[in-house]
Amino acid sequence: MSERALRGLIQLAMLLCLMLSAGVAIGRPPRIGEYSVEKVAPGVWRVRIGEPEKGTPTRFQETPPSREAMERLAAVEQPPVKPSAIGVKVSGRGIALEIPLEPNEQLYGLGMNLKTFQLSGSKKTVRVSDDQTTALGDSHAPAPFYVSTRGYGVYVDTARYASFYFGNLDAVRDVPPDAGNVNGGAPATSTADLYRPRELNGQFVGVDIPAARGVDVYLIGGPDMRGAVQRYNLFSGGGCLPPLWGLGVWYRGSTELGQKEIESLLRQFRERHIPCDVMGLEPGWHTHSYSCSFVWSDKYPAPEKLVSGASELGYKLNLWEHAFTHPSSPLYKPLLRWSGDYRVWGGLVPDFATPEGRRIFADYHGRQFAEKGVSGFKLDECDHQPLSATPWSYPEQTAFPSGLDGEQMHRLVGPLYQQTMASIYRSRGQRTLGLVRASGALAASLPFALYSDAYDHRDYVRAIATSGFGGVLWCPEVREAGSLEEFYRRVETAVFSAVTQIDCWYLKNPPWKQIDKDLNNSGKFMAGWERTEAVSRKLLELRMRLLPYLYAAFADYRSTGVPPTRALVVDFPQDPNVRAIDDQYLFGPSLMVAPLWTGEKKRTVYLPQGDWYDFWTHEKLSGGRKIEVTKPLDEIPVFVRGNTLLPLAEPVEFVSAQTQFRVTVGVFGAKPRKFVLFDDDGVSLDFEKGVQSRLELSWADGRGTMSTTGGYRGPSRYKIVGWKAY
Amino acid sequence: MSERALRGLIQLAMLLCLMLSAGVAIGRPPRIGEYSVEKVAPGVWRVRIGEPEKGTPTRFQETPPSREAMERLAAVEQPPVKPSAIGVKVSGRGIALEIPLEPNEQLYGLGMNLKTFQLSGSKKTVRVSDDQTTALGDSHAPAPFYVSTRGYGVYVDTARYASFYFGNLDAVRDVPPDAGNVNGGAPATSTADLYRPRELNGQFVGVDIPAARGVDVYLIGGPDMRGAVQRYNLFSGGGCLPPLWGLGVWYRGSTELGQKEIESLLRQFRERHIPCDVMGLEPGWHTHSYSCSFVWSDKYPAPEKLVSGASELGYKLNLWEHAFTHPSSPLYKPLLRWSGDYRVWGGLVPDFATPEGRRIFADYHGRQFAEKGVSGFKLDECDHQPLSATPWSYPEQTAFPSGLDGEQMHRLVGPLYQQTMASIYRSRGQRTLGLVRASGALAASLPFALYSDAYDHRDYVRAIATSGFGGVLWCPEVREAGSLEEFYRRVETAVFSAVTQIDCWYLKNPPWKQIDKDLNNSGKFMAGWERTEAVSRKLLELRMRLLPYLYAAFADYRSTGVPPTRALVVDFPQDPNVRAIDDQYLFGPSLMVAPLWTGEKKRTVYLPQGDWYDFWTHEKLSGGRKIEVTKPLDEIPVFVRGNTLLPLAEPVEFVSAQTQFRVTVGVFGAKPRKFVLFDDDGVSLDFEKGVQSRLELSWADGRGTMSTTGGYRGPSRYKIVGWKAY
Repeated sequence: MSERALRGLIQLAMLLCLMLSAGVAIGRPPRIGEYSVEKVAPGVWRVRIGEPEKGTPTRFQETPPSREAMERLAAVEQPPVKPSAIGVKVSGRGIALEIPLEPNEQLYGLGMNLKTFQLSGSKKTVRVSDDQTTALGDSHAPAPFYVSTRGYGVYVDTARYASFYFGNLDAVRDVPPDAGNVNGGAPATSTADLYRPRELNGQFVGVDIPAARGVDVYLIGGPDMRGAVQRYNLFSGGGCLPPLWGLGVWYRGSTELGQKEIESLLRQFRERHIPCDVMGLEPGWHTHSYSCSFVWSDKYPAPEKLVSGASELGYKLNLWEHAFTHPSSPLYKPLLRWSGDYRVWGGLVPDFATPEGRRIFADYHGRQFAEKGVSGFKLDECDHQPLSATPWSYPEQTAFPSGLDGEQMHRLVGPLYQQTMASIYRSRGQRTLGLVRASGALAASLPFALYSDAYDHRDYVRAIATSGFGGVLWCPEVREAGSLEEFYRRVETAVFSAVTQIDCWYLKNPPWKQIDKDLNNSGKFMAGWERTEAVSRKLLELRMRLLPYLYAAFADYRSTGVPPTRALVVDFPQDPNVRAIDDQYLFGPSLMVAPLWTGEKKRTVYLPQGDWYDFWTHEKLSGGRKIEVTKPLDEIPVFVRGNTLLPLAEPVEFVSAQTQFRVTVGVFGAKPRKFVLFDDDGVSLDFEKGVQSRLELSWADGRGTMSTTGGYRGPSRYKIVGWKAY
Repeated sequence: MSERALRGLIQLAMLLCLMLSAGVAIGRPPRIGEYSVEKVAPGVWRVRIGEPEKGTPTRFQETPPSREAMERLAAVEQPPVKPSAIGVKVSGRGIALEIPLEPNEQLYGLGMNLKTFQLSGSKKTVRVSDDQTTALGDSHAPAPFYVSTRGYGVYVDTARYASFYFGNLDAVRDVPPDAGNVNGGAPATSTADLYRPRELNGQFVGVDIPAARGVDVYLIGGPDMRGAVQRYNLFSGGGCLPPLWGLGVWYRGSTELGQKEIESLLRQFRERHIPCDVMGLEPGWHTHSYSCSFVWSDKYPAPEKLVSGASELGYKLNLWEHAFTHPSSPLYKPLLRWSGDYRVWGGLVPDFATPEGRRIFADYHGRQFAEKGVSGFKLDECDHQPLSATPWSYPEQTAFPSGLDGEQMHRLVGPLYQQTMASIYRSRGQRTLGLVRASGALAASLPFALYSDAYDHRDYVRAIATSGFGGVLWCPEVREAGSLEEFYRRVETAVFSAVTQIDCWYLKNPPWKQIDKDLNNSGKFMAGWERTEAVSRKLLELRMRLLPYLYAAFADYRSTGVPPTRALVVDFPQDPNVRAIDDQYLFGPSLMVAPLWTGEKKRTVYLPQGDWYDFWTHEKLSGGRKIEVTKPLDEIPVFVRGNTLLPLAEPVEFVSAQTQFRVTVGVFGAKPRKFVLFDDDGVSLDFEKGVQSRLELSWADGRGTMSTTGGYRGPSRYKIVGWKAY
């Protein structure tokens, strides 16, 4: 053997030792060595690679997959991605995957996102974050789940800050070497030119999962994109069915108001006939709020009277809190051993992943609040600040008694809190609907909506579209506004969203009296505010008119997994024109919304293939094209899909046990599809035991009919008072 | 046993199982279990916790600690932090430390940073990043090393993206429960109020090291802050000593210029008497530059003639490159098996942590370039983009043949490349000085300076100050400017920095002819540009006058570890007034610089205790106070410390083998400290073998003397032509 050959051999041996010692599998990159594939639900295959971590979303999933509902979807016989084609690499850093991709696939998802829509060509990290200003993947509700226009989804079961590279990695093994070079190799002449994103070969999605040595990957069949979204939601247990009142109008009073002022506000709304179902109290109700005492402050001397008074006027009460538990709280001592090892704002961080921590928190809230008539909660500040140099939340290295670390807890705490609070009402046989600023994967069944501080109107609309990719609900709440135009446009968006909320936590008076924050708080109302109030009333009444339609959409969410709000691409994945549309969205089965922006009198709207009708004028419009739309300040561009039966109610001011909606059914098109109204008591969990009915509306030969099936025997929520064909 | 007690026991057992299975040590938080302490150098103790990772900075350190020089520092007998007081926690995520802190300690460091100065109260992550717009810790040259005003340093030996929480974590075990709550518990009334940073209890530095299960922590004694900085640099092998020509003026020609145009520029500078030592070529010299071919393009038909012609005129040539190796490069095939498994811009990412990868790259560069007279290289785009949704570099999950992953390589590649390139010149007995856009820990001995695209003048000055905390050199280069004022102020800063460079990579003509990019490139010169050229010449001549002083400062950097540029707090840690000063800095042993900003005719300058002299007027100023300073456009506020001997040379246009500086020694104060000039051939490595001399300047009784000791026998670099007392 020559000296040269010997040297080469020695070097190769050294290299092998190095690679083995670093835990890197051999090959470039190694294919999956040890894995098993199991069909875990209809159309869902779990690929188990190595030994997965314990603290993952599936481990804490409480609602089992809705297998029967999944069976009813179009059948998928084979995993949509070949498990053996998934590349796997384990290193000291963690585990990395390469999930095959075909050219021209467009990908969506990774949870709800305010900034990001299409994913291909980008890197995203699934981190819970209060910062919604970047396109890095940070989100109030990130989820390691993406869907493809090719008609499948992939869910990676991890609570780590996993990063996804959507077709923008260039593996040495299999890419033409000249792909992706800059400027064809010629020098760039500016930094902007140099670093612009480039289209690289899109042969796989690279997934980087820190810390893990194994992972479960769920391959979720469609067969189309909508089917994949449905299957993911049904795998999560199906969408939540909120109480009917939760779909009404929410209002939150200023944190500075006391009991008397809140009571006065409640009376004012009824006197002025402002629709409102839920009044929310903000931090001021606690004796100590950052961190929280969970004890009524002396600004609320008779909270039981507040609740009962509100109830008499037809309101539900929702309480702001965060989970950080102040030393003055009665919960502090019991929670001490069931909390993380770092405090936030001087308060404990309860570990909702321990049965004890959860029980202590739930028992107290049940006894002190739910039992006394409080309808639900709003969990603030549960989102982390990974992009801040002065974060206020617990660090990633926090140790929790459950064994979770801070990184995992940030990803999991939203769903864990929601489960905890929902369990209070479940044990009482009631439904709740709450608000939360963090959620995550497999959360579709949890009765909470996300909200944010971000407040950019276009971003809020994008989130309505993207929430449908993540199995979460989004509340694009309205606060102050820079102009009346902006105010109306924001209210209109709120009306066509999962939860309609006017959030006045820092406004002492309703914004229709004064949209400017400072003037509002100094009690200086706008000249002619009554006109603004009237328009606001009309818009909120529109929300109430939509309730039967929306409640049906939520019933669908539960039973079929179709999200009540979603991007156009979910329903029209074959139409290349909708792939980039993030400023229009579908609302329920048959409405498409295209909000107008402040300062823009008209906008372009894309109508997908088929017939459409203007919601306001009933004008018939042919689809497959763009149109220019303009609307007055008190109308939002909405379009009804062809062949739709659209039930619209006469508005009520709130929903009570006695409420019966007087419904007129709009008939759009000659051969409308059936529409099924969902009927039950609207508040209890009895519907789960079959105490619910389906009111099927049909139209044929110029005549509408309704047939009822199901087990609900109470007074029907609906009275059909007319049919109107357009 | 009661049922209740039994239930409690079962729950406790379950909890223990959970904690064990997640790898969390028990206790809140656990104290260090398994560790060893070893004194590894004078005043440096290594605390080994668990089993450290293999791919850390110390593993790749080539220059051994300068033990003898460390012995000469003031003695430190005990570890500055009690090793047993370091808290340790291991979880599935990695390892976390809590390093004790005392109240009122201020901390600095984590490498060079453009945005961050004081660390206390903040979270920083040590990531290499091209994005210098945040205070998150991202940097061109991050290092897990911090120093304290209490007079010690801590170096955490990791190449992971470690996060440091500087006294802003609130551990459950030992903090008064009411610390750090917001607004005293009262509700906030705006989001700005809610999330402002708060002063929390500062009892420890929390360190979060992902992936690792063990780590070495180096406790570095001072006894003062300057001593701790010196000791860190000496532990790194001592600071680099650049070739003397490297301290002259650097200029980089436009990437669009060809050989003829560069040659014309070289002649132009000599004709116009513009000082210039180094001409840099930008991407255009390659046949393919993104990724790189490392082959001369046909715009450079006779590169050997270019080099020799430049040499005849007294220039050195520096070549731009990045390491991403294009398929058309002769290096592609040899490097294929010694590269990472993802390409960047179609090119291989060589693994400089393998001896083979390094040898292939170095041999080629030695043969093709160094041997033919090229003086060094500039490595561009070696910094990652952790804050980009469309990063262009290799991902963290990249696998390298050395066993490093991409996360580690991003932190290590800067130093590894620098070692590779320095080895070329070392094997030829020569010194080099290069530029690089990424560096890291323990890099003081490597002859490279950092640069950036960021270009904010204030940030560039802050980096001059912070580079001294990280053991790296920083080049605040000048490109275009928005005004003549800005141009001059930037040049002045460049003159008083480690490397003075005018970087015209996208400017066809020198900026003193036209500061506007577009006009410059279209050949439209400013009216009266000759005046701008004259001022620029004068400023660059000032740089040349400083060369003996600066060369001595670098010799000090090598032998004592004092950085040539540093923040005031390094020399005056006891003065609370300097703690926040990041817009003034020390330059060499005795000069303090306070740059002026565009649009500000005057500025406040803090003079630390003692006497100071205005560099320009020689006016004596008493310290311990703030003064207002104004300077004309061609002067920068500089102050000479009292009792200083300041050697200033007559300017030369470049440094050659024959250069002898004609030095006048300024005498500031009645009892000036000695000043030692460093004398050697200025280009070879013979100084390491003792072929160097110390020229000691003294002043007593109104008379200056010089005495020479040492082994350098060549012609002296210095001729003292006068002494001038102020």
